[in-house]
Amino acid sequence: MKHSKIQSDGAILLSTFPDEKSLIRLCKVLVADKRLCACVNYTKINSLYTWENELKQEEEFLAIFKTTSKLIDALKTEITVNHPYQIPEIIVLSMKDVSSDYMLWLVNNTRTT
Amino acid sequence: MKHSKIQSDGAILLSTFPDEKSLIRLCKVLVADKRLCACVNYTKINSLYTWENELKQEEEFLAIFKTTSKLIDALKTEITVNHPYQIPEIIVLSMKDVSSDYMLWLVNNTRTT
Amino acid sequence: MKHSKIQSDGAILLSTFPDEKSLIRLCKVLVADKRLCACVNYTKINSLYTWENELKQEEEFLAIFKTTSKLIDALKTEITVNHPYQIPEIIVLSMKDVSSDYMLWLVNNTRTT
Repeated sequence: MKHSKIQSDGAILLSTFPDEKSLIRLCKVLVADKRLCACVNYTKINSLYTWENELKQEEEFLAIFKTTSKLIDALKTEITVNHPYQIPEIIVLSMKDVSSDYMLWLVNNTRTT
Repeated sequence: MKHSKIQSDGAILLSTFPDEKSLIRLCKVLVADKRLCACVNYTKINSLYTWENELKQEEEFLAIFKTTSKLIDALKTEITVNHPYQIPEIIVLSMKDVSSDYMLWLVNNTRTT
Repeated sequence: MKHSKIQSDGAILLSTFPDEKSLIRLCKVLVADKRLCACVNYTKINSLYTWENELKQEEEFLAIFKTTSKLIDALKTEITVNHPYQIPEIIVLSMKDVSSDYMLWLVNNTRTT
């Protein structure tokens, strides 16, 4: 089943969270209730960064949200408003290509607008 | 050794797997036998998604395949055909830039076409 | 607080390391001393790759550096020169979009040139 190269209109959003509990609580709303993304993967990470000129080394959780390009702005806003951090990391990566079956799954598991 | 900015023709492919065993079995074929990618990194993740309108929370493995742009379609097809999931996640990200030594290593460790 | 779509000039750099110690040592210099990136996330991964035609399966650490586009070449050079590997993976991904507050934080926590 050769995968036709469809014009991808999927998008990935990266954000880090202080703990698993707040991450899961927000993700359940975004995936199941608001249907702003079809899937979230997350994993524990270590982070090094400066905060008020002091080097910090902390455990965080990296969340990888997958959605359609149409919904990315609404997803960004919803995460920003409900995120536990004052200045959350919210980075969007574009999908250069995506298999057509998976893209269809993304579309079918998110709201239309 | 200042790195000249070479026109990157590398590509990254992301896919999730239900277990480590099926991931490793496929990756060995893709890296060592078919030489469709030079390297795969993988790590355990947690995933939240809806399947047939039900919220699922499961452990998966995220695999990050690194190859040349020339081979990305063949890699996509090979993963799709041999993946344990009925609808596998197959997402391609483009490398905006890559160090020339690493790009050379990618080319030397994958087949030409 | 609707996030205005600002022209992102953020960038992500991916690199893998053989151990946590060498990763942290380099990251502290890059984040706190040279201010070439504002933040690094890292996590343990497993890697499959061929080295001199032999399939290798090893534990590594994946580091995700976040900085401004202006600093990405200097960051690439600094990592290449100080990396424990002879041929380090150095891959740059562009940020298609980024929340304006986080972008401002990136700019404020890195040097200007």
